[in-house]
Amino acid sequence: MPIVVQKFGGTSVGNPERIMNVARRVVETQRAGNSVVVVVSAMSGVTDGLIKLARQVSTHPTDREMDVLLATGEQTTIALTAMALHSLGAKAISLTGAQAGIITDGIHTKAKIANVTPRQIRKHLNEGNVCIVAGFQGQTLQGHITTLGRGGSDLTAIAIAAALRADHCEIFTDVDGVYTCDPRVVPDAKKLDIIYYDELLEMASSGAKVMQSRSVEFAKKFNVPFEVRSSFNNNRGTTVKAEQHGLENVVVRGISIERNQAKVTITNVPDRPGTASRIFNALASANVSIDVIVQNVSVSGSTDISFTMNNDDLEKLGGMIDGVAKEIGAGEVIKKGGIAKLSVVGIGMRSHSGVAAKLFDCLGNGGVNIQMISTSEIKIAVIIEESKIESAANFAHAAFGLAD
Amino acid sequence: MPIVVQKFGGTSVGNPERIMNVARRVVETQRAGNSVVVVVSAMSGVTDGLIKLARQVSTHPTDREMDVLLATGEQTTIALTAMALHSLGAKAISLTGAQAGIITDGIHTKAKIANVTPRQIRKHLNEGNVCIVAGFQGQTLQGHITTLGRGGSDLTAIAIAAALRADHCEIFTDVDGVYTCDPRVVPDAKKLDIIYYDELLEMASSGAKVMQSRSVEFAKKFNVPFEVRSSFNNNRGTTVKAEQHGLENVVVRGISIERNQAKVTITNVPDRPGTASRIFNALASANVSIDVIVQNVSVSGSTDISFTMNNDDLEKLGGMIDGVAKEIGAGEVIKKGGIAKLSVVGIGMRSHSGVAAKLFDCLGNGGVNIQMISTSEIKIAVIIEESKIESAANFAHAAFGLAD
Repeated sequence: MPIVVQKFGGTSVGNPERIMNVARRVVETQRAGNSVVVVVSAMSGVTDGLIKLARQVSTHPTDREMDVLLATGEQTTIALTAMALHSLGAKAISLTGAQAGIITDGIHTKAKIANVTPRQIRKHLNEGNVCIVAGFQGQTLQGHITTLGRGGSDLTAIAIAAALRADHCEIFTDVDGVYTCDPRVVPDAKKLDIIYYDELLEMASSGAKVMQSRSVEFAKKFNVPFEVRSSFNNNRGTTVKAEQHGLENVVVRGISIERNQAKVTITNVPDRPGTASRIFNALASANVSIDVIVQNVSVSGSTDISFTMNNDDLEKLGGMIDGVAKEIGAGEVIKKGGIAKLSVVGIGMRSHSGVAAKLFDCLGNGGVNIQMISTSEIKIAVIIEESKIESAANFAHAAFGLAD
Repeated sequence: MPIVVQKFGGTSVGNPERIMNVARRVVETQRAGNSVVVVVSAMSGVTDGLIKLARQVSTHPTDREMDVLLATGEQTTIALTAMALHSLGAKAISLTGAQAGIITDGIHTKAKIANVTPRQIRKHLNEGNVCIVAGFQGQTLQGHITTLGRGGSDLTAIAIAAALRADHCEIFTDVDGVYTCDPRVVPDAKKLDIIYYDELLEMASSGAKVMQSRSVEFAKKFNVPFEVRSSFNNNRGTTVKAEQHGLENVVVRGISIERNQAKVTITNVPDRPGTASRIFNALASANVSIDVIVQNVSVSGSTDISFTMNNDDLEKLGGMIDGVAKEIGAGEVIKKGGIAKLSVVGIGMRSHSGVAAKLFDCLGNGGVNIQMISTSEIKIAVIIEESKIESAANFAHAAFGLAD
């Protein structure tokens, strides 16, 4: 019998009524002749409530106890989901992460899955049960409860699909799938039927918030194809899978945008070893996540370095970066918010030239000035004025024929 | 280092502030030179909230999933309590019932403890930790989560104290200990320093709601002395322990009362084998708990049988008992609410005559009419008009000199 893994996030199981909807969908999948494993998150809002409770007894709760506390969230959902399935006449059994055989390392609150031993899941599936597994959690070999950090439930689903060699893995979410661009920005954006792991990774790191990169990387590593689809309708979603060699790949798969960015430029940075390291170590210590970094070749013993970050992180910088600039003998520090990033992504870019030219062309024709450019093998990203991001996205979407 | 087990119920850990109070008390106990194991219940209200959630997805949730759901209640408390201890600078670690080595049978929602393997607790105590154990829960040998039913957290504490051969086991509650009688009824009732297991069992089954009989029976079986005391002050409580042979025991330890009772009398029950069985099987099928049963000798081929129950159960009877009476050829069925039970309890009764006479005497002098009498080796119980229960309790309390 084919094995299907279905993952439902916090919004999809947000209240008893929605849990009943999930149960109905699971029963349909089972009656269609599948063995079903369901992975669920904590009901939306529950985790935040638990964190609030923790803060009332401790300003800095320890990670181990935070995990014991947070793990109750998914444990509640698995029991309720199993009950809902029972009330529909289905056989079902709930399993905590530990019971499901999710073994992790001991890094509490952001544990890595070390191993999945799906013996219990297999046994219960063979007995005709739907297995309801608590996402986001596991246990160490020593028996301590751990949680997997952000996107942890997706990871649980993909790891179980890998361990069971499942025939299908479905990640239910509140969107219909992955789109060629954000439909709120580009009205004729199309839902993609398929996308390759690397493309989704570039889209995700460029602001398309469908899934945490971590889960996509895990799926790529173990070659687990999965489908991102909506829990609120029956539409097919987007299948995410390994690149198929030998086929002609689409040049551009999609466009992702990220607003609310800021850039910092340090002028006249002396061209000697260690200066870049000094700057970016200082930023890391201040807990600022840097996105794009651009440094051009030095022509006169010094160069300008620019980098971007989330606008909210700009404040964290304070006068720190000015101090560093002074220390290394650089010139001015220019800080500027109100910018955005537009990325064009596609595996086919590797073997096609002219993508960058076409992008710059359409933006130029539209009167969009490009402030910075950054490229990877399968992505071209440009930094532009935030006020121009919507028109830029529509120009690019049309230029690459993504609505066709 | 002496080992102390401290159990705190749902009211004592009812909110973050109270959890901090519990943590302070535990730290004091540890600093006084003890190894401390803390057993906690779910925060008051949490269990009811979970039951309500379950009812929204299933009219009859299965027992196994109910256990998975309810076990999250204590798991939340152990994490918060450990965090609270950390914030006071103490070393502490939380353990679920399963992690603490509480192995039970597989009777979900009312599992019996089969075995306690305190290896993890010992290890963590030896490393200087306070161990915070989730009460009320355990796991089967197959790894299923179970709960122990009513009074389960007390049971966990006593079982752990037995397994660790703890030096002291303290059951913290919202009363100061066990009293000679309910102080709301008898103003000069005194807190007892000690009481024997059997006496507390008779008191408990007679309405003194300090602890579930089940936990007292368990403590008696494994000879675990424990102290019942208040979590809201530092007063010593009442120590419950094994009877000490060879000592002269007090004749009467205390008086317990139970209001809101009802009695049913079936007249002229034919004196032949099987009639009593027919009556009480019918009552059991109707889920009515019977307390006192009185049947006198038959003088003319038939006899009257009377029994008492909670007043609320009287309605459940409906016409059922009349039907049974007719079927077995008995006479009338007389149902009467508005009665109460007064029990005089004491180990010393065994070797002292005259206790019953003194009780009947003082009630007679007080104008209290006795409707039924039932005795055990260490208890005399009388059924009287409910309106007389307060004065009766005061007469008896004075007659046996319990305030002295």
